[in-house]
Amino acid sequence: MALVVQKYGGSSLESADRIKRVAERIVETRKAGNDVVVVCSAMGDTTDELLDLAQQVNPAPPERELDMLLTAGERISNALVAMAIESLGAEARSFSGSQAGVITTSAHQNARIIDVTPGRVQEALKQGQVVLVAGFQGVSQDTKDITTLGRGGSDTTAVAVAAAMNADVCEIYTDVDGVYTADPRIVSDARHLDRITYEEMLEMAATGAKVLHLRAVEYARRYGVPLHVRSSYSPKPGTIVSGSVEDLSVEQAMITGVAHDRSEAKVTVRGVPDNPGIAGRIFRVIADAEIDIDMVLQNVSSTASGLTDITFTVARSNGALAVAELEKIKAELGFDQVVYDDHVGKVSLVGAGMRSHPGVTATFCEALSQAGVNIEIINTSEIRISVLIRDTQLDDAVAALHNAFELGADEEAVVYAGSGR
Amino acid sequence: MALVVQKYGGSSLESADRIKRVAERIVETRKAGNDVVVVCSAMGDTTDELLDLAQQVNPAPPERELDMLLTAGERISNALVAMAIESLGAEARSFSGSQAGVITTSAHQNARIIDVTPGRVQEALKQGQVVLVAGFQGVSQDTKDITTLGRGGSDTTAVAVAAAMNADVCEIYTDVDGVYTADPRIVSDARHLDRITYEEMLEMAATGAKVLHLRAVEYARRYGVPLHVRSSYSPKPGTIVSGSVEDLSVEQAMITGVAHDRSEAKVTVRGVPDNPGIAGRIFRVIADAEIDIDMVLQNVSSTASGLTDITFTVARSNGALAVAELEKIKAELGFDQVVYDDHVGKVSLVGAGMRSHPGVTATFCEALSQAGVNIEIINTSEIRISVLIRDTQLDDAVAALHNAFELGADEEAVVYAGSGR
Repeated sequence: MALVVQKYGGSSLESADRIKRVAERIVETRKAGNDVVVVCSAMGDTTDELLDLAQQVNPAPPERELDMLLTAGERISNALVAMAIESLGAEARSFSGSQAGVITTSAHQNARIIDVTPGRVQEALKQGQVVLVAGFQGVSQDTKDITTLGRGGSDTTAVAVAAAMNADVCEIYTDVDGVYTADPRIVSDARHLDRITYEEMLEMAATGAKVLHLRAVEYARRYGVPLHVRSSYSPKPGTIVSGSVEDLSVEQAMITGVAHDRSEAKVTVRGVPDNPGIAGRIFRVIADAEIDIDMVLQNVSSTASGLTDITFTVARSNGALAVAELEKIKAELGFDQVVYDDHVGKVSLVGAGMRSHPGVTATFCEALSQAGVNIEIINTSEIRISVLIRDTQLDDAVAALHNAFELGADEEAVVYAGSGR
Repeated sequence: MALVVQKYGGSSLESADRIKRVAERIVETRKAGNDVVVVCSAMGDTTDELLDLAQQVNPAPPERELDMLLTAGERISNALVAMAIESLGAEARSFSGSQAGVITTSAHQNARIIDVTPGRVQEALKQGQVVLVAGFQGVSQDTKDITTLGRGGSDTTAVAVAAAMNADVCEIYTDVDGVYTADPRIVSDARHLDRITYEEMLEMAATGAKVLHLRAVEYARRYGVPLHVRSSYSPKPGTIVSGSVEDLSVEQAMITGVAHDRSEAKVTVRGVPDNPGIAGRIFRVIADAEIDIDMVLQNVSSTASGLTDITFTVARSNGALAVAELEKIKAELGFDQVVYDDHVGKVSLVGAGMRSHPGVTATFCEALSQAGVNIEIINTSEIRISVLIRDTQLDDAVAALHNAFELGADEEAVVYAGSGR
């Protein structure tokens, strides 16, 4: 008998009818002889509706109360799914995050899971019950207040519960049937991936593939929880996320796929005096405003002027704040101006294969060049190449790379074996 | 500094705008130097909407999950009120029933409060915070599951918290400004009552006055918590419920008012053999179906036939079930038939004055007779007379009694001093 953790997202639960379909799948899994723990997100737009109400009563709602408010959404969906399961003749018990032992830090709206103590969950499983755990929420170890885990929190709950209970698999049900070599809306012959390593999935998620949240994948990698990303609407297998690139043979290591991201903006600080500590000062100001920086480019300074430009990317939603923070230190640092540009896009190639196969970077740049795409910033990891380009060229760039690395469904998926990376 | 517990009903919280008004009143009370604990019901129709969703996924939803589902409603309203309070510059903390220490039996959907251990509430008050406690809900002492208190549960929560914390007053905010001598929609000169004893309020509530729930009044009486029933929409004082009829002087003891109730139905079992134990058998069958009986009438049996009729009233919502249960034992008991009649209404006169003033029953009956109203069943307590009549005559009966006992606002409210009760 296997222990299966299943997580269902909000769109899979947006109506009574969809909830009944989800219940059918859960009961099927139970009847196949598995112990089943289910983690549900809030129904459809519930979270947005609650946020809207909060805004109406307080434009800057206190985070502790926001957590109290939003966690009601998952309690509702979990209780409804439990009822739907019982109407199919199986037994079910729903637990809040707190009842299920999801212990977190006290950082409201963005708490981290410290520990999961699933005593009540295990007790209910022993009694043959399907157990539902409210996603996205926990209870603070210090204050005993209700907390939420931030974006993608229900995925993280599912993985954390799976890890604490040593589950055989954590199935993440979503509205797509897994991870593809590129976004099928952009690349018509994008290929479904049956398997992907944690590291590759992390790079894909970090660079724009929206199917899984970064934190959940990190958590799964740390505890070795196999993930199965699959569709709520189809019985066919999805994508298994497991294993490390370290364990892949050269033959297994391939180019995984192309990810893209339209959510970043480029900030350039022009005419920065090229003195030690100045770049550090700039990035400290951004960090103090709690803004994450993604890509960075520092031009070689002109010897004549002793001035340089510093360019970096941030989330567009933080763009205005980043500019405002920099303007405050303009006089102090003596730079010329801050330029803001949100007509940019990022395209990334991810794959364990680039560790062992040279020439990937060359082919990457050639393919973009042939498609008439100019590279503004480039950034690499051991298994990823990302470039910042004009947003208008993003679709072309994705298609060109997908084609150049022969990732399409029509051809055999082969390891790229060029030369001279 | 006084400790004030305030309870707001769902209609006072049905929109963001109303929530902001409630918050203003709470902050006003706080600024006047009081410690304030607030108990909120779920917003407007939330509970009904959640029940509707539950019905859609399971026509017979399990009660444990129903409690998990419905308690989300109070979490939402409490968190929103806390946010609205903070936007006015005061500090607020909302707690679930479980967090606030509301410990109950494990009877889902109808749990009883066993104890209130308000440690966290007291701690927050000490820090100068307004505390919100989610109404209607608690946590089972035995199973640690979430429970609900049944109808009027938020009133009961407020009274229980007030009792546990030895509050100076428990204010129940509703959409009327207190208790009246009769329903002002029926009797235009119905008079507002400034004070009423627990016993009189219990009789009024039990016989149809909807302003307070029976259980909350019982709880308040047991622990001596003064209640103040008042309007959410007006600053004027409402009705204080406190004290016992035992402590009233003869001069203070008056006729309180006239209550009415359209929710009952009359069941008559005809041709019952007049043997010992038969009536007990009939009422046991009704009790086993968990149906409460209100009024009872057993006719004197005809010596000729040895048969009698047994008549009683139940809630209309239980009428069909009561008849079905009785039909099952028809052959066993050998009665003729069960007759069901839901075109009945109940009118009651309540007042501590009738203990010390004879003649009340006579005047009561005379007034109804003069109004052409026929009495079908009569039932009395020390401070109440109730009669079952045709539902079409209910409004006339209320007006006739209100007038006969000079309860109107235009005349001085005097103790009725007739003779020969």
